[in-house]
Amino acid sequence: MQIFFDDRQCLHNPARELHNGDWTDYYESADRARKIAGTVGAATAPADFGEGPIAAVHAPEYLHFLKTAMTRWREAGRSGDAIGYVWPIVRRRALEFGRIDAELGQYSMDASTPISDSTWEAAYWNAQCAVAAAHTVLSGEKSAFALCRPPGHHAGRDYLGGYCYLNNVAIAAQHALDQGRSRVAILDVDYHHGNGTQDIFWRRGNVLFASLHADPRTDFPFYWGHADERGEGDGAGATLNYPLPRGTTIEPYRSALSQALKKIEASAPELLLVSFGADTFALDPISHFELQREDYAVIGRDIAALGLPSVIVMEGGYDLDALGDNTTEFLGAF
Amino acid sequence: MQIFFDDRQCLHNPARELHNGDWTDYYESADRARKIAGTVGAATAPADFGEGPIAAVHAPEYLHFLKTAMTRWREAGRSGDAIGYVWPIVRRRALEFGRIDAELGQYSMDASTPISDSTWEAAYWNAQCAVAAAHTVLSGEKSAFALCRPPGHHAGRDYLGGYCYLNNVAIAAQHALDQGRSRVAILDVDYHHGNGTQDIFWRRGNVLFASLHADPRTDFPFYWGHADERGEGDGAGATLNYPLPRGTTIEPYRSALSQALKKIEASAPELLLVSFGADTFALDPISHFELQREDYAVIGRDIAALGLPSVIVMEGGYDLDALGDNTTEFLGAF
Ligand SMILES: [Zn+2]
Ligand SMILES: [Zn+2]
Repeated sequence: MQIFFDDRQCLHNPARELHNGDWTDYYESADRARKIAGTVGAATAPADFGEGPIAAVHAPEYLHFLKTAMTRWREAGRSGDAIGYVWPIVRRRALEFGRIDAELGQYSMDASTPISDSTWEAAYWNAQCAVAAAHTVLSGEKSAFALCRPPGHHAGRDYLGGYCYLNNVAIAAQHALDQGRSRVAILDVDYHHGNGTQDIFWRRGNVLFASLHADPRTDFPFYWGHADERGEGDGAGATLNYPLPRGTTIEPYRSALSQALKKIEASAPELLLVSFGADTFALDPISHFELQREDYAVIGRDIAALGLPSVIVMEGGYDLDALGDNTTEFLGAF
Repeated sequence: MQIFFDDRQCLHNPARELHNGDWTDYYESADRARKIAGTVGAATAPADFGEGPIAAVHAPEYLHFLKTAMTRWREAGRSGDAIGYVWPIVRRRALEFGRIDAELGQYSMDASTPISDSTWEAAYWNAQCAVAAAHTVLSGEKSAFALCRPPGHHAGRDYLGGYCYLNNVAIAAQHALDQGRSRVAILDVDYHHGNGTQDIFWRRGNVLFASLHADPRTDFPFYWGHADERGEGDGAGATLNYPLPRGTTIEPYRSALSQALKKIEASAPELLLVSFGADTFALDPISHFELQREDYAVIGRDIAALGLPSVIVMEGGYDLDALGDNTTEFLGAF
């Protein structure tokens, strides 16, 4: 299986995040990518597909913001990483601002996802990995793996959040559609709900989005991923959420997974994209499921049994000791 | 003029706020109220009008949250004041959670307005001051002053923000309507846009809301208070925003004020409520207008010239040395 990774993805390096009321060290470290890359096998640097595939998903004003935020942050006399402090929780709409703090709130959903000096460069190459993996599978390979880091599934069309800046899996999915595929499915098996992916395709009938994740009543991102969220308009019914309680083990996990896989199969996609997070692991330091290392091979086989051309995109996973092995187990099925 | 104030309003005492990327000392201190109380003249503690007038404006689930947040914060093992770290920027809706962090984001708009141990008690008596002032004017007095602190105008029906928890002026306005008045007007002359007040009455035709404030392109709350926000439905045209640039002096301020006053007069309200902030003062440490002490008497007279029964509700103002004098100048006109 071809694996895509670019060292520049490690340039993004925020120092801290706001979590549960105070600063904590930033969990989404560059070491995550290095650990995975050191275990899963030889990776290829992606070709540069340019900004086109990114702009096919994200708003131009948001991309401009990502590129310029740190310069404007420094111009405002600030040190450290850039985060917002107020958010447009009602009647959010496109607005122009003369202050970086306003933009940070406009284009984010949390105070846990700082912009650091090389965030744009890291996110750009990250997205290129996803496009390259899609390109590989569209060219006839059975599967490919985009070793994305930072992750992407919490990022919306015009906002960052949950360690995510560009929605890698959405960019890969949209690239497949733009290359002529007519129906694709995205399966999200990260511990957290993929709210950004859901939001991007909320009104789209040609992208089925199915997500297994920790119940948002107790777990980030809280406001999205509840079972009654099903999409709207053309996308009504094309969003499927399977919230699971903390402590979930492989048996109930597989049970929910089989429901999701049946829906995916029934939608007859030409391509499957998987948002894979290893933060469902029992020892993950910020998550609360009880999956074991060997379970990742089982889950991988369940998904691979669909027999669909598959693009695997890395999302979360924060136990550095097990991250590479768990990912390797999963990928082995494809 | 009768002045309402209750010492319990000083119990609310957060230690810090997130501002421009890091913690700063909390500007909205209890000393603000003490300074005003020590200058404006003898104050009366309000009668207890109960929770009814508060519940006529705020959502029951939000009031429950305000009352229980600190207990739940401590139960979650947290120390210090309670703040959120993620916000429902898209498709915000009523949801139930099993985690205090989720509720903090659900019921707030920023990371600058912590809940501290006695926030509910302080906010409760604060709101009673506003109701008492309204009651006094409804009973025939020409005017009354509610020495509110914490302020209220950024708080919406079900969210806190901008140092505000309960929307005192909205509670007073709604109380007047519930006591039989059919049309009221709210004039907001704080430095910051009164987004909570606007939001509460956004679809209401019987409450004219007019606000003069710093341009939200550069100043908090950023996402609301732009000139094109005019209300919707029954409230279309009943919201009037006058954003003014940083550096605004008394002449352009009076010019905008006279436009607002003409609109208020044309709407023929039976009662005027004024959200008064002294943070328009030239030396205010967090604001950027250039009003002088003597200007507050001028502004007060312009407003009082409407000849309407008037309830003045205190909002912001952070220069402790001048706060009492500037407020006294303003009140002297009524
Ligand atoms: Zn995750
Ligand atoms: Zn203010």
